[in-house]
Amino acid sequence: METYLFWIVPIASLLALALAWYFYKQMMLESEGTPTMEKIALYVRQGAMSYLKQQYKVVGWVFLGLVLLFSIMAYGFNLQNPWVPVAFLTGGFFSGLSGFLGMKTATYASARTANAARNSLNKGLRVAFRSGAVMGLVVVGLGLLDISFWYILLDYCIPADAMNPSAKLCVITTTMLTFGMGASTQALFARVGGGIYTKAADVGADLVGKVEAGIPEDDPRNPATIADNVGDNVGDVAGMGADLYESYCGSILATAALGAAAFIGSDDTVMQFKAVIAPMLIAAVGIVLSIIGIFAVRTKEDAGMKELLGSLATGTNLSSVLIVVATFLILWILGLENWVNISFAVVVGLIVGIVIGRSTEYYTSQSYKPTQRLAESGKTGPATVIISGIGLGMISTTIPVLAVVTGIILSYWLASGFDFANISMGLYGIGIAAVGMLSTLGITLATDAYGPIADNAGGNAEMSGLGKEVRKRTDALDSLGNTTAATGKGFAIGSAALTGLALLASYVEEIRIGLTRLGQTLLELPNGITVDVHNASFTDYMLYYDVTLMNPKVLSGMFLGSMMAFLFCGLTMNAVGRAAAHMVEEVRRQFREIKGILTGEAEPDYARCVQISTKGAQREMVFPSLLAIIAPIATGLIFGVPGVIGLLIGGLSSGFVLAIFMANAGGAWDNAKKFIEEGNFGGKGSEVHKATVTGDTVGDPFKDTSGPSLNILIKLMSMVAIVMAGLTVAWSLF
Amino acid sequence: METYLFWIVPIASLLALALAWYFYKQMMLESEGTPTMEKIALYVRQGAMSYLKQQYKVVGWVFLGLVLLFSIMAYGFNLQNPWVPVAFLTGGFFSGLSGFLGMKTATYASARTANAARNSLNKGLRVAFRSGAVMGLVVVGLGLLDISFWYILLDYCIPADAMNPSAKLCVITTTMLTFGMGASTQALFARVGGGIYTKAADVGADLVGKVEAGIPEDDPRNPATIADNVGDNVGDVAGMGADLYESYCGSILATAALGAAAFIGSDDTVMQFKAVIAPMLIAAVGIVLSIIGIFAVRTKEDAGMKELLGSLATGTNLSSVLIVVATFLILWILGLENWVNISFAVVVGLIVGIVIGRSTEYYTSQSYKPTQRLAESGKTGPATVIISGIGLGMISTTIPVLAVVTGIILSYWLASGFDFANISMGLYGIGIAAVGMLSTLGITLATDAYGPIADNAGGNAEMSGLGKEVRKRTDALDSLGNTTAATGKGFAIGSAALTGLALLASYVEEIRIGLTRLGQTLLELPNGITVDVHNASFTDYMLYYDVTLMNPKVLSGMFLGSMMAFLFCGLTMNAVGRAAAHMVEEVRRQFREIKGILTGEAEPDYARCVQISTKGAQREMVFPSLLAIIAPIATGLIFGVPGVIGLLIGGLSSGFVLAIFMANAGGAWDNAKKFIEEGNFGGKGSEVHKATVTGDTVGDPFKDTSGPSLNILIKLMSMVAIVMAGLTVAWSLF
Repeated sequence: METYLFWIVPIASLLALALAWYFYKQMMLESEGTPTMEKIALYVRQGAMSYLKQQYKVVGWVFLGLVLLFSIMAYGFNLQNPWVPVAFLTGGFFSGLSGFLGMKTATYASARTANAARNSLNKGLRVAFRSGAVMGLVVVGLGLLDISFWYILLDYCIPADAMNPSAKLCVITTTMLTFGMGASTQALFARVGGGIYTKAADVGADLVGKVEAGIPEDDPRNPATIADNVGDNVGDVAGMGADLYESYCGSILATAALGAAAFIGSDDTVMQFKAVIAPMLIAAVGIVLSIIGIFAVRTKEDAGMKELLGSLATGTNLSSVLIVVATFLILWILGLENWVNISFAVVVGLIVGIVIGRSTEYYTSQSYKPTQRLAESGKTGPATVIISGIGLGMISTTIPVLAVVTGIILSYWLASGFDFANISMGLYGIGIAAVGMLSTLGITLATDAYGPIADNAGGNAEMSGLGKEVRKRTDALDSLGNTTAATGKGFAIGSAALTGLALLASYVEEIRIGLTRLGQTLLELPNGITVDVHNASFTDYMLYYDVTLMNPKVLSGMFLGSMMAFLFCGLTMNAVGRAAAHMVEEVRRQFREIKGILTGEAEPDYARCVQISTKGAQREMVFPSLLAIIAPIATGLIFGVPGVIGLLIGGLSSGFVLAIFMANAGGAWDNAKKFIEEGNFGGKGSEVHKATVTGDTVGDPFKDTSGPSLNILIKLMSMVAIVMAGLTVAWSLF
Repeated sequence: METYLFWIVPIASLLALALAWYFYKQMMLESEGTPTMEKIALYVRQGAMSYLKQQYKVVGWVFLGLVLLFSIMAYGFNLQNPWVPVAFLTGGFFSGLSGFLGMKTATYASARTANAARNSLNKGLRVAFRSGAVMGLVVVGLGLLDISFWYILLDYCIPADAMNPSAKLCVITTTMLTFGMGASTQALFARVGGGIYTKAADVGADLVGKVEAGIPEDDPRNPATIADNVGDNVGDVAGMGADLYESYCGSILATAALGAAAFIGSDDTVMQFKAVIAPMLIAAVGIVLSIIGIFAVRTKEDAGMKELLGSLATGTNLSSVLIVVATFLILWILGLENWVNISFAVVVGLIVGIVIGRSTEYYTSQSYKPTQRLAESGKTGPATVIISGIGLGMISTTIPVLAVVTGIILSYWLASGFDFANISMGLYGIGIAAVGMLSTLGITLATDAYGPIADNAGGNAEMSGLGKEVRKRTDALDSLGNTTAATGKGFAIGSAALTGLALLASYVEEIRIGLTRLGQTLLELPNGITVDVHNASFTDYMLYYDVTLMNPKVLSGMFLGSMMAFLFCGLTMNAVGRAAAHMVEEVRRQFREIKGILTGEAEPDYARCVQISTKGAQREMVFPSLLAIIAPIATGLIFGVPGVIGLLIGGLSSGFVLAIFMANAGGAWDNAKKFIEEGNFGGKGSEVHKATVTGDTVGDPFKDTSGPSLNILIKLMSMVAIVMAGLTVAWSLF
């Protein structure tokens, strides 16, 4: 038995964390530059940390409430296993820690990046990218660390069931999914809270600063500038870190659970073990290859923009190619059943991720027709910019959906051994594809996370008056990041869809465990056949609970799921609107009351703006986030298992498409504005530019608040359903 | 056997048509007013008719292609029954005829309404409302006429199957559904083409006229004014007529098909007959009660605004109350099994429609907080108006979804005799609820259709320089229409959701017939049981085709369905954007090149603008409409039955929510602008007003093009799937 292979997982995780520590230390050795640069960086750092403290306080209360609920379920009513409350907590803790460490690094790195950019573009890239890599490595390192820890602990503590030896791994893996729920909960608050914060500040700063006062972005005379820069850190760094930690762990854990479920009732516990650790191994190997990729990102001292982009691409492409080879190798060594096909499923996942990324790039980059045409629509004013952007975003959902659908069918078909009736292995294949997509997260996240660092470096350069040359370099770094980030977004959103499906299957698995815990051993199906709870297939469970597409409860659940996606988006959009309105009022007030701001003679009250964003985000994030937790519980109590499955599928299909729509529309508006600023259709300051600024402002909450939060919403609802399955089952019996 | 009761249906239909004729003649007796008024009305009428001719030409080609396809399927490969091509054609013809007659009436009525309004508000209401009633009565009259005609014909021509007497009514009802597909196809083109036309003209006229040149709405100096008024007729009248004809017939036919299916395999053909004609009878009684309601709309000569509103409300409320009583009565006389419960299902449908209507009113009327707050967000510019409007629209989906979900569960539960396992009767209940919702369409459509007539009357008054007093009266009539139209929209959108579900069930029915036609008599289920094709339950079919929620083909279909809703909206949004841009260029060109337009010395070239809208709509409507037809066929060929069912459900759940979002966001933007124009937050001409004008312009395609087209898309995809089921089944076997 290849038990020893498992140890690759914790070793890879420690390797990632060690390297992250090394990169962090290296970055800290750099100078922060002039005293003004230091001061500004300090402001931003303090603002960001104080926000995070506030956020963790609120999240802490929510976690306390949920842990109490789970404890009552586990210890009071035997509706959950006793590990759940603790596992839930660690998931939340590590997800938060990933965001915290990533943000800490980012806030130290921005001034240093700006300072390095004073020397050369290449030096700036090095500092920013290595700092981004800290985040990438922390996320994957902590993720696999938590997974290894729980796996070892539960394997040691949970006794094997003599009656049914394959049941043990099922209990272990579904318990570990609870820690995924902890991570999702933390991630949702981080994304929603951070997203509201950053966009309230950004929209507020733009509306009064750029549009009304006519001063440039990041101008120190704008009171909301510091808040805007804080926002990049709490939203794009801390929020993204928590988010991708959740995606990463979620896909691995869901796939492991499916692997365990595929062999339930069989005596082949060895193969079951292999199916469970396969996703972990792929992820572990992915870490090593990400590290190789990170080190491959190096350029000559006098590298130009094109060479920099090339070197970043080299790093990520190298990792992707290597992971394909390594997957075949590791699964062959592991001796997993049907390993060739399953390796191909990993490749399918990777390709789907790349296709979505390329499609995102095509629809949102100003190098292509769609965004250029969007920019042109500014000739007839802001209304046509909005209409065209919404049209573009909606149309842009086509390729990603086709890619995901092809990915679902192919990975299922491959892993099932070309037999559509082999549902459990087929679903396992979908999970494996998601893991494949995220396996090189270490480096893709590095290229993603360095974007906001470069953005902040630009802010610091502008506020410190470092001159146009430096600002130009940081802008180049920033736009470099935008291109690579498109691929990263593709992976995040594609994996959410596949993981969502895998979690759906895990839900059925959890129902099996819930029934067992309640002492039910047989399922009486409506056609008169009786099957054992353990040997019952997915289809048997569907029949038992009447989860057919003609059951009005399933249909109702689906309507509710679609509605949840829209309602959640609407709430977060409105939250940004309200918080931004407060910011606008405050900035206007300061311009009015503090004399000499606009001439640069008086310093604006930055802290007050930071405070307003913090308070706004705190207040606004609670309701939508709680709704995501309560909806699946309420649906389960009212409509039972069929309603919950409908809710999850409706939320998944609508939420996925809605998320792409919002992300791409937002991205295209952003770049359409940039396209104008590059001197097209009248350039900066023209009426066309003004029209596209309106588009950009509308796009901000689309792409940075509502859109990315939807990814988590989809998975959090599934996670909640899984954790509460015991209650739903008991309630239905009752 | 209560066969005689059936004759109520054709009699009611003839009654409606006769009364429509009478109202039309009465309206034509009125004077069109001054020569200028006559001239303008003539322009609009000519423009509208020439557009409709163009549209029918394009639609004619599409119909020709489809009829050929159906003929090959029916006569060449025995994949359809021989009546299908002809039934399809009549549905398309009658749907088009409804739109045509409604529009003809409307274009004759607008100048007459304006002229009547010169005398008094009450006279204006009378002419406009009676003209709207022509449309309402034509739609329901032609609908029931077509249904009666086909029912009698098929009953006479199709021989009863001695082996299985209950099969005959199933064949009749599913054949009649084909005529529903004809109606849906016509309706989609009418809505999309008309919607693009009207909004291209409206957006174009507003952007240059109101925003750039600063001249009021409907000003004769604006070259796009006539096109704008033509647009109201081709979009809001002809489009709506075809649309609601389709909804009305679709709900009745789908329910009849479910009624026939519920008794398949049973010997109780009498009860089957009753279940089939019950929805027709409810509709027929609804016609009579609508007529009573229409006559109840009368006011004193010196009636004020409030009294007018009261009298309209009296009419619709009276019809609603009477239909409840009449339903119990007619179903009792009919002696339908479980008639009390089924009557209650009708009531449920009515209540759901009213709740959705009220919720629409709450979210979109300037009398309530949401729209007022939206107007206030204009203080911080157009971007926040857009953000808040999108937020509002998304949040506003909650109540309608909750209402529909409650309606689904309740009507299913009631009709199934409180037994969720009784699927066929339960689904029949959902269909009956949809019929109940639309039963008083005669009067609700009258209150809806008179809105654009009043709008056009206002345009005529403005262009003919009739003075402020008359314009104020027509504006009052218009805003009166907006309030009643909210309820009408609620009924249309709610019935689309319920009818969509009923059609889904009919699809399964059509598969049964398809299998029979191919000579298959037994279904071998995966659990080893073999059932007769005729006696197989819904669940058996679901099992046979593996339509479970874990089948990747179902899941893929659902993603594709969600995507279709977004893609379709995106295409229509962009179409409006492009067509509007052409209009803007043309108007700017005329202002530039034709000297003296703005001083009123030269007449603009109205015809050219009409031509541009016509061409734009023609060009743009083809692709999205064909897509709606091709998608279900392609999905069926690639993913088989499970894929199609996934597609329909995904499209239904996402499309319904998306449609409400778009309709309500658009409505709220429109009224937020009106709220400002009433003098709030700075009133007309202020910066806040400009910001809300941007919102209104964006909202135009939301509420009048993409949103309402989605309603039809949902049903057309189902209809296509039903008609092509024979092909899908044969292909799967092959």
